[in-house]
Amino acid sequence: MKRLDSRTPEFEAGFTALLADRETESGRVDAPVAAILEAVRTRGDEAICEFTARFDRMKLTPDRLAIPAAEVDAAIAQVPRDQLDALEVAATRIEAFHRAQLPTDMEFTDADGVTLGQRWTSLDAVGLYVPGGKAAYPSSVLMNAIPAHVAGVERLAMCVPTPDGVLNPLVLAAARRAGVTEIYRIGGAQAVGAMAYGTKTIRPVDRIVGPGNAYVAEAKRQVFGRVGIDSIAGPSEVVVVADANNDPRLVALDLLAQAEHDELAQAILITNDASFADRVAEAVACELETLTRRVIASASWRDFGAIILVPDWDEAARLVDRIAPEHLELMVDDPRALFAKTKHAGAVFLGRFCPEAVGDYIGGPNHVLPTSRTARFASGLSVYDFLKRTTFIAADKTALERIGPAGVTLAQAEGLEAHALSISARLDKR
Amino acid sequence: MKRLDSRTPEFEAGFTALLADRETESGRVDAPVAAILEAVRTRGDEAICEFTARFDRMKLTPDRLAIPAAEVDAAIAQVPRDQLDALEVAATRIEAFHRAQLPTDMEFTDADGVTLGQRWTSLDAVGLYVPGGKAAYPSSVLMNAIPAHVAGVERLAMCVPTPDGVLNPLVLAAARRAGVTEIYRIGGAQAVGAMAYGTKTIRPVDRIVGPGNAYVAEAKRQVFGRVGIDSIAGPSEVVVVADANNDPRLVALDLLAQAEHDELAQAILITNDASFADRVAEAVACELETLTRRVIASASWRDFGAIILVPDWDEAARLVDRIAPEHLELMVDDPRALFAKTKHAGAVFLGRFCPEAVGDYIGGPNHVLPTSRTARFASGLSVYDFLKRTTFIAADKTALERIGPAGVTLAQAEGLEAHALSISARLDKR
Repeated sequence: MKRLDSRTPEFEAGFTALLADRETESGRVDAPVAAILEAVRTRGDEAICEFTARFDRMKLTPDRLAIPAAEVDAAIAQVPRDQLDALEVAATRIEAFHRAQLPTDMEFTDADGVTLGQRWTSLDAVGLYVPGGKAAYPSSVLMNAIPAHVAGVERLAMCVPTPDGVLNPLVLAAARRAGVTEIYRIGGAQAVGAMAYGTKTIRPVDRIVGPGNAYVAEAKRQVFGRVGIDSIAGPSEVVVVADANNDPRLVALDLLAQAEHDELAQAILITNDASFADRVAEAVACELETLTRRVIASASWRDFGAIILVPDWDEAARLVDRIAPEHLELMVDDPRALFAKTKHAGAVFLGRFCPEAVGDYIGGPNHVLPTSRTARFASGLSVYDFLKRTTFIAADKTALERIGPAGVTLAQAEGLEAHALSISARLDKR
Repeated sequence: MKRLDSRTPEFEAGFTALLADRETESGRVDAPVAAILEAVRTRGDEAICEFTARFDRMKLTPDRLAIPAAEVDAAIAQVPRDQLDALEVAATRIEAFHRAQLPTDMEFTDADGVTLGQRWTSLDAVGLYVPGGKAAYPSSVLMNAIPAHVAGVERLAMCVPTPDGVLNPLVLAAARRAGVTEIYRIGGAQAVGAMAYGTKTIRPVDRIVGPGNAYVAEAKRQVFGRVGIDSIAGPSEVVVVADANNDPRLVALDLLAQAEHDELAQAILITNDASFADRVAEAVACELETLTRRVIASASWRDFGAIILVPDWDEAARLVDRIAPEHLELMVDDPRALFAKTKHAGAVFLGRFCPEAVGDYIGGPNHVLPTSRTARFASGLSVYDFLKRTTFIAADKTALERIGPAGVTLAQAEGLEAHALSISARLDKR
């Protein structure tokens, strides 16, 4: 963990190092992924079954790719009641927030008599990739599927690998609750290929979302253009801005909730009180002794953690905007005022009783957020990812007479004669 | 040009062929582009000047990369008055439409006492790439820059190569009118590198938009993640749905306005009248004899043009959705009713007096649109491309007591102990 003071001359070098890229050099997988995609494109289900046998040690036939409703029912029946109830609370709240997010169509007729507008419509079909094994988070299924369902997407196909046949019942329960219409027990680049190109048993989708390993990410990159994809998530981060009127243990737990995700996660405390900074550092060390995921969290805190001392919240806001964190907690007296001073963050948590974990599960807004400083230009997942806009223009002859001549002049200036003629010939009509 | 009739048995094969990929196999430029980007990243302005000397035959020094205001003024002074006036009409209308498009923030407090919302803020800095030479379209400068300006972007840097020193004065006039704050006389992958990484004289931006050649497109792909990019445009297309109550020449000109763009452009007529189809085909042949860009337009119409006969507008709407065209003209008695039946199109032009060229220049909506069937999942350029959303959650202890326990249950189910503790420790506080 790094300690920095924004008033010292060495601050700038230390802070810049903190912002440095946390991406690890993952091996290039573009060639093997291209080969898998090509096999799926040309040989369809047969290739899917071969790759699933090889990578997931599962012998499948095309008719067994889809998980039938009865199998989903049986799996859900194993889920403890309290988990199903908690899932329902989360799903209901996520649904309500994303419903409030739905945009409305726009239309107006201007002074020239031209009617202009834009109409939102949903995508027809979306593919949701869900990692298998330990990385399978039911909360992510809700966060990816519910916005698509709320947007009005009719087909919501999910692919989740089941290595050695192991299924996560809570993932299936989440899929059922979120409105997923088809579930396939396949994963990896082959699943992405199936959703992008379609096979005899799996119809193609229009957009693929959801996290995955390096093969899945590369496969999404390669099918981009044929279908839409979501952004490729990098390592995740939190910035907690806290004054001395906080319980150091609560701040420590919030930092560790980020650090326990993975070794590349980054947790940063910004405070205006040096002795509070010390107490938080001690509390982190103390909690790390007992935390289940202490190996991961310790590595993250050691390598990328930081405590930054600032003279005031104006300076804190400036640093927040330079970090552009995925998550930002504001545990200060007037969090709204500080929020108003910042510009770049994926999701913000206001007040001393709103830890980031609320947003991961049951707040309502999406937990799929821009990582690695991309909050400068990107937003979290939303209903917008499953909608697209069609703009429209309606003009009659009178309206065209008013605005058309300027169009003719510009088309001629650009050397596009048919463009100019398509307007001028209409103006010439009696 | 292909003639199809949706009622014949051979239709499906012909229609599928029509939808086939029009992308040409362009040579792989990823290695040379990576080398250029690496040179710009490590050697900055020096590398920029070297590449500009090599590719644009221009000897520059770092202090001459920016085009000074006086030089812009002098260039604009050469532009004919009627062109400046037409530019002003276009800019004013584009501005008005994109202003109407600006989204509003959202906030509500729910029954559990949790306050939820989302806030829109603009990007800090945007880079606009503008091709040099013949491909430099002033209208594209307006369409790319005005939405950024309307969104509130403060820095709007433009790169336009000036091979052999040749500048397009109307492009500079458009940049000035659209609110561009800096103009650099550089192009190619080196310009994309300069905007993504920054150099001593060019500060980095957060997102790069605008069309370019294969090198520019590949450079944008490679810097994606560090900065945002717009989608890579493919060949462009129009579908005109027209009944027999239209002047065949007007329909022919609309088809040719698409075909004259480039050899890969696609123009498709859908009509319910076979003899009208014949008359349009004749009119296209006739116009092609005199059109300035007849070589390009003839190739496009010959290779990718089509006339499709349908029994009724329901069938037309189904075909439109399968094509998901960039541009759609509805020249029928009740264009609104037909519009309501379709779902996938980038921009729609309603009525007999609203050719697509209106949308290219002076309609108001953006002319940067999803091409090559991507209107199934993508939208045209808009103010949304220059804004991002920050979601926020505020909860006090009472609210956390209501929603927190479900979060604890889910965090425990996912094995994330610090997540669970960050909520439960707050609930335990007296």
